[in-house]
Amino acid sequence: MTKALVVLSGGQDSTTCLYWAIKEFGISNVEAITFDYQQRHRIELECADQITALINVPQAVLPINTFQDLGGSALTEEAIEVKNDLNPENQLPNTFVPGRNLIFLTFAAAHAYKKGIKTLVTGVSQTDYSGYPDCRRDTIDKLELAISAGMEYEVSILTPLIDKNKKETVELAIKVNALEAMALTHTCYNGQQPPCGECPACELRSKGFKEAGVADPLVERFNA
Amino acid sequence: MTKALVVLSGGQDSTTCLYWAIKEFGISNVEAITFDYQQRHRIELECADQITALINVPQAVLPINTFQDLGGSALTEEAIEVKNDLNPENQLPNTFVPGRNLIFLTFAAAHAYKKGIKTLVTGVSQTDYSGYPDCRRDTIDKLELAISAGMEYEVSILTPLIDKNKKETVELAIKVNALEAMALTHTCYNGQQPPCGECPACELRSKGFKEAGVADPLVERFNA
Repeated sequence: MTKALVVLSGGQDSTTCLYWAIKEFGISNVEAITFDYQQRHRIELECADQITALINVPQAVLPINTFQDLGGSALTEEAIEVKNDLNPENQLPNTFVPGRNLIFLTFAAAHAYKKGIKTLVTGVSQTDYSGYPDCRRDTIDKLELAISAGMEYEVSILTPLIDKNKKETVELAIKVNALEAMALTHTCYNGQQPPCGECPACELRSKGFKEAGVADPLVERFNA
Repeated sequence: MTKALVVLSGGQDSTTCLYWAIKEFGISNVEAITFDYQQRHRIELECADQITALINVPQAVLPINTFQDLGGSALTEEAIEVKNDLNPENQLPNTFVPGRNLIFLTFAAAHAYKKGIKTLVTGVSQTDYSGYPDCRRDTIDKLELAISAGMEYEVSILTPLIDKNKKETVELAIKVNALEAMALTHTCYNGQQPPCGECPACELRSKGFKEAGVADPLVERFNA
C-alpha cells in the first residue's frame, strides 16, 4: 500500500495534487505537509488548514524562518512592496530564493522518513514557466537521487502537473473531484479574499477556468 | 579567482576547513556561514563568532527553526535528555533528522548564489563513520547535481576531510595553521567549557590530538 505525502500550499495546484493523490492512493493513505515560511500572504496557510479539515486529511505544518533572511524582506513582509522588475543580470525577481523548492522537498522527505512514507507529491509545473529551475522535472529527478542517498531511504517525488498548463490543471481538478475545494484555495497575488481579479495570478487562474469551460468556485463563492 | 563559502559550526572539523579554504583560496576570498538551528549547545555559535572575528572573515548566521519540529525536542532543548540508545529499527539516535546536511548545504548554496560564490566547503567525513548517510561523498556528489540544476548555477562542494580520521584532521589543522583557532572550537557533547573530557566527543578529539602528537590548544587554554 503506497502512502503519499503531499506538499500543500493552499493554492490551486497543490490542492489539485492533494485530490489527485487521494484518488490514486486512497484517502487513508494520504497526508499533507504545509510550510509556514512567514510568507507574505498568510491567508494561504488558513486555506491549507480549511482544505485538509474539509476532507479530514492529516496535516503537518512546519515552520521555516530561514527565507526571511535569505530572500530579503520583500519575500515575507507584506508592508514592503515587491518589485516586479526583474534583475537584469539573471531575469529573476528580487524576492527569488534560489532552490526554495529543494528545501521544501527535503524537509518534506525528512518528515516522510519519520512517518515511513516514501512517496512525495508536489504541484510544480514546467509548462507555465515560472522562471524557477527548481520546478523542472530534471531537477526533481536529481533531487530524488540526492535525498535517497542522503537519507538512505528511497523516495519518489511525483509531479502530476509537471507538463500541464492551467487549463489542463483545471481539467484534472474536475476529474479528481477537487472542484469543491477550489472554493477554498488562494491564488491572488495581492492576498485579497475575495480575490482582486486583476493581478497576474488572478488573471492566469481565470484564463484556466475559462478555457476549461467551468466557473471558478472561488469566484462563485463570493458572488453568491 | 575562486571564492569559497565554508559551512562553519564552530567545531574542530569545520574550523579546520575554514583555515584550509583560506590557505587554498586566500583570505580575501573566503566567507563563512553558520546555522542557528536552536542547537542544544549554543556555545557552538559563540565559538563560530569568535573564530571568524579572530581572522576577520565575513560570516553570515542564518536561523533555521524547522529542526525543532522535525527532530523532536531532544535535538534542540538542553533540558531534555538525549537518549543514546539507538532506535532498533534503523540503528539511529532519537535526535536524528534525516538529511540535515542536505538542508545546510542547500541553504548555504542559496546564500552563495546571492553572493556570486560557486564553491562550498563542508567538514563532513565518511571515515569516522557517524551513521549519517548525508556525510558521504556519494551523497554530496548527487546534491551538487541537484543544486546546480535547481538553481541553474553550478556549485562545487568541497570536502577536505571526507577521507580523514581524527588524527589526520589534526595533522591537516597543523598544516593550514589552524592550531591556534582550535583553542576556540567546541566539541564537548555535554556543552561544557572547559570540556568535560569524558564524553565520547571529548574522547574522540583527545585521541586524535594524542595520535597526531600535539597538545590540544583547547585543553591547554583551560590548564593555563
